[in-house]
Amino acid sequence: MPKLEVCFTPKTYEEYRNNDAIVVVTDILRATSSICTAFINGAEKLIPVRTVEEAKDYKRKGFTVAAERDGFVLDFADLGNSPENFTPELVQNHTLVYSTTNGTNSIMMAKEAREVLIGSYLNLKATADYLIEKGHDVLILCAAWKNKFNLEDSVYAGALAELLLEAEFETICDSTKAAIDLWGTAKEDLMGYINKTAQKGRLAKNGLDGCIEYCHTFNISTIIPKLENNYLVAAN
Amino acid sequence: MPKLEVCFTPKTYEEYRNNDAIVVVTDILRATSSICTAFINGAEKLIPVRTVEEAKDYKRKGFTVAAERDGFVLDFADLGNSPENFTPELVQNHTLVYSTTNGTNSIMMAKEAREVLIGSYLNLKATADYLIEKGHDVLILCAAWKNKFNLEDSVYAGALAELLLEAEFETICDSTKAAIDLWGTAKEDLMGYINKTAQKGRLAKNGLDGCIEYCHTFNISTIIPKLENNYLVAAN
Repeated sequence: MPKLEVCFTPKTYEEYRNNDAIVVVTDILRATSSICTAFINGAEKLIPVRTVEEAKDYKRKGFTVAAERDGFVLDFADLGNSPENFTPELVQNHTLVYSTTNGTNSIMMAKEAREVLIGSYLNLKATADYLIEKGHDVLILCAAWKNKFNLEDSVYAGALAELLLEAEFETICDSTKAAIDLWGTAKEDLMGYINKTAQKGRLAKNGLDGCIEYCHTFNISTIIPKLENNYLVAAN
Repeated sequence: MPKLEVCFTPKTYEEYRNNDAIVVVTDILRATSSICTAFINGAEKLIPVRTVEEAKDYKRKGFTVAAERDGFVLDFADLGNSPENFTPELVQNHTLVYSTTNGTNSIMMAKEAREVLIGSYLNLKATADYLIEKGHDVLILCAAWKNKFNLEDSVYAGALAELLLEAEFETICDSTKAAIDLWGTAKEDLMGYINKTAQKGRLAKNGLDGCIEYCHTFNISTIIPKLENNYLVAAN
């Protein structure tokens, strides 16, 4: 049976590394919700870059650049990291360059894995169905906050893990079990639960918390962004 | 108000480092339960060492040495890492040298903090009372398993965090909130919950799981082992 693990922070990626696995990267507030939104609104490709310098270089070359650090849009960028930034007008048929505090680093970190997918609530069921059909090991990689555990990514990991364990997957991984228990606690009142996260406080401080409910909307898309070489494209 | 944080794995200690805080190191199965037991049974001092070589050097010098890797007693050692090894006959008025897979490394990692305490269920209430009386920031450091998140240390962190937050402590730390929720789920049937941990499986495989119930016994001691220079002594 394929094996399921959850890695709560990129700082421990080496401890969980399994290059035979499909890695699902998640950064619910907000990078992977925004990336899913970009594809929903017609983006053709997305280039995740780790550093501000790389993002600037792409900007000089004429690309549309989304770049954020600590919740703020970088001054040279065309858009930030809020899903509502990724409008059809800005993204349709475009190749976007994207750099964020936590999410893009995790995506590139996993690039040696069998496949790297982008997971959010927006495409939760589609992602689970894809993983069940493929039948390979799965590692859910939470982008976390500057390498510290965060609740919103861990709760999503539990939601996805629950769907996979209901199918043919198995786990002996303590963090997977913790994620499922956190999801079990959170799901009764998901918005109330997410209200207590540190990231809710960070976003609210900058008036950026309007997207939180949207980022916890289930299954509005079946598009699964996937890493192909150094680009994200729709896997399906 | 003093601040409370939980660090789920020593791999992220730098992210949580707060040298003004009192650090409570926990490795429920089994190092910190065994260290508490050694002091309950009359040990005078305990020297935590990180490497097998250091432990061997102390053995050559005539010390009583407890040393374990991956659950197994090292051949040169006098005793292993099971609490039942630390009998009054072996430990009373002795200085012990102690090296384990996860726990001792975490203790020494935190040595620049204001104080380093050893926490287990055996001294849970006494530890909470001590921390509340001191009123400094607290960081609970889970020894984890080879840098991977583990459930048993995280659940203990939640139990201790709950007592501290009922007093004057505050937190904005997502891992503290997760630990409390895991403890909330686990405490209804603590032994049933601990049965699903990876460490239960590891110990059972080697016939070493007989101590698990003892390691989850509440408040049989008021002794709090504390790091003084490179030694653990009773803090109180």
